[in-house]
Amino acid sequence: MADLADIADIGRDARRGGYSRHGFDTAELELREWFTAEARARELDVRPDRNGNLWAWWGTPGPGAVVTGSHLDSVPGGGAFDGPLGVVSALQAFDVLRANGFTPSRPLAIVVFVEEEGGRFGVACLGSRLMTGATAPEVAARLVDQDGIAFGEAAHRAGFDPWRMGRDDEALGRVGAFVELHVEQGRGLDVPVGVASSILAHGRWRFTFTGEGNHAGATPIEDRRDPMLPASRVVLAARKAARDGARATVGRIVPNPGGTNVIASSVDLWLDARAADDRRTRAVVAEITEAARGFAAEEGCQVHVTEESYGDTVHFDARLRDDIAGALGGVPALPTGAGHDAGVLAAHVPTAMLFVRNPTGVSHAPEEFAEAEDCAAGVVALATTLEHLAR
Amino acid sequence: MADLADIADIGRDARRGGYSRHGFDTAELELREWFTAEARARELDVRPDRNGNLWAWWGTPGPGAVVTGSHLDSVPGGGAFDGPLGVVSALQAFDVLRANGFTPSRPLAIVVFVEEEGGRFGVACLGSRLMTGATAPEVAARLVDQDGIAFGEAAHRAGFDPWRMGRDDEALGRVGAFVELHVEQGRGLDVPVGVASSILAHGRWRFTFTGEGNHAGATPIEDRRDPMLPASRVVLAARKAARDGARATVGRIVPNPGGTNVIASSVDLWLDARAADDRRTRAVVAEITEAARGFAAEEGCQVHVTEESYGDTVHFDARLRDDIAGALGGVPALPTGAGHDAGVLAAHVPTAMLFVRNPTGVSHAPEEFAEAEDCAAGVVALATTLEHLAR
Repeated sequence: MADLADIADIGRDARRGGYSRHGFDTAELELREWFTAEARARELDVRPDRNGNLWAWWGTPGPGAVVTGSHLDSVPGGGAFDGPLGVVSALQAFDVLRANGFTPSRPLAIVVFVEEEGGRFGVACLGSRLMTGATAPEVAARLVDQDGIAFGEAAHRAGFDPWRMGRDDEALGRVGAFVELHVEQGRGLDVPVGVASSILAHGRWRFTFTGEGNHAGATPIEDRRDPMLPASRVVLAARKAARDGARATVGRIVPNPGGTNVIASSVDLWLDARAADDRRTRAVVAEITEAARGFAAEEGCQVHVTEESYGDTVHFDARLRDDIAGALGGVPALPTGAGHDAGVLAAHVPTAMLFVRNPTGVSHAPEEFAEAEDCAAGVVALATTLEHLAR
Repeated sequence: MADLADIADIGRDARRGGYSRHGFDTAELELREWFTAEARARELDVRPDRNGNLWAWWGTPGPGAVVTGSHLDSVPGGGAFDGPLGVVSALQAFDVLRANGFTPSRPLAIVVFVEEEGGRFGVACLGSRLMTGATAPEVAARLVDQDGIAFGEAAHRAGFDPWRMGRDDEALGRVGAFVELHVEQGRGLDVPVGVASSILAHGRWRFTFTGEGNHAGATPIEDRRDPMLPASRVVLAARKAARDGARATVGRIVPNPGGTNVIASSVDLWLDARAADDRRTRAVVAEITEAARGFAAEEGCQVHVTEESYGDTVHFDARLRDDIAGALGGVPALPTGAGHDAGVLAAHVPTAMLFVRNPTGVSHAPEEFAEAEDCAAGVVALATTLEHLAR
């Protein structure tokens, strides 16, 4: 029986707490080996696609397949559930179906997408975006991690050919329906399991402020052009712009060179912004960008803003959603502020999500948690869903 | 002839620009080898002391020595002059004195102090602080770099015994006078060379803000306790508190875990604060600390403030300063906002500094610069000073 406990020691982050598992790093590669072994033990046919995603098939791979799965990577210092819960629950749901003697009339598969969090290469849902063509392979290949290693190089080291990556109509064409089970990431559920209605429009923008590096002791205040000043004001402006349900967050900021006794010459900060729809998300980012230009000018600095990723609002397939909710006895439907591979696939194939209750609402942190009973209810709900769709 | 060009390729920082050379790292060890070879080529007796500093003797090591020198490490992404100019000028000054047939009546020495910038282990002037007892060896041994390597371990790997480090009265007792030549770090000189009058009181304080890590998309604004908010307000409060010649800078900030789509669970930032005297420096830090507590409380966060290093105002030996200024034909005396090993030694032995003009005032940055003619004037001034003191 596959369990989160089996992988509890892989990719622990001693400095940050929790887990740091990123696309094609040592921890993620070890998790892929674990998944491959678990799938083989179930006599599933395991094979990677051209984009680094792993597929484990019950039955002959082919069109009309009912596919479930999630990802094994984490944010830096993330929790145990975001991603792996969906993979472990998929394996367990297959076990349930087999124990019940279920014989699917359509192929079933479990997929593990690579680099869902974008924690290493900066673009979330990279594996599903490559597969669907949402991110071009030549763009992906050039993304670099903090050590300067390009995604193309990391993929190559992991045994993939970056020149063969890109939209994969064959893989996508087999998917009749995709259902991703995931831990809920807010406090939106007061029952063990629900289904997703929509995902907020969301994206990441990099703000690069450039000033003049200098000595922190020898440079009079009036001579300074310190990019830390406008960068800090942007953190506050982001909070101010996050009104009416919108969210704007700065969780990453990197002054260069980053010395204690050095006025930074430049500062990179990343804005994560989300709102109910495209118009409102764009308005939040525009407000912050305009403020940033003013702050930069006041300090004699420059600012350059780059959109690193963006996804419009996702409304999951209403028919599939209602079908599943009904098969599960009328569980509630709820929106989420978090992005998912399911959100990327939703533009191409009928897609749904099952959420497992999160009692504290904490996610992307070591304290992320779901009760064992709720996780078990999630497995039963996923098995019921797969049986309902594949019978 | 020793020259800055000889070491121009050692420790370049491709990412930040300029140089990253830190105590006992690969670049600094290579620079120490270069210095040792240069000293041996001059038949100087080169030996390290117990604390990792290097001494090169002209004549038998003994009391009453006239010592010059500086350091070879840099801030992250620093310039070519801060530190190495003093070492190179010392070697060149010895060459000048020998070419002139000078026979010193007192021992002369060049010293290279380790980890002057504190760029790796966080405490500036670590080599001179260990030698003078200003930093206890057991405290130094436990300082860790960003990779988690302790100073004790790094010193051990470099061939030093951390258990034998600490106040070195034998080394200190030999120093009759110490004169450090350094590039000026502001725009305080309108002639090629000057002497130092004083160093601002200065120190480093670490502010650790603790909040609640969470998902940047799924967490409503009203549920957040985001430590990036109070941390950013401290950057602005530091600027506000830097009045009447005081300086306060945040050049280093590290959110944990540092993911783009993650609300930070904690943020470390380092405040560099300096003012004319102890009372004024303390007042600046107290004002910022009090503001930080308020900012943290407003966001439901905690803040913890740690003094990582502190040095009171240094007034260089007035008699030595005037003696040297006179020997150099009446060059100006000027204060500096920058800390130096000379500032640490000044509490123990007659100490002076020579400054070489900095046309832009930029320091601790790749653009740090001094004209070749001014550097040559610095060498002549240093040779004149050493001859004056050692004849």
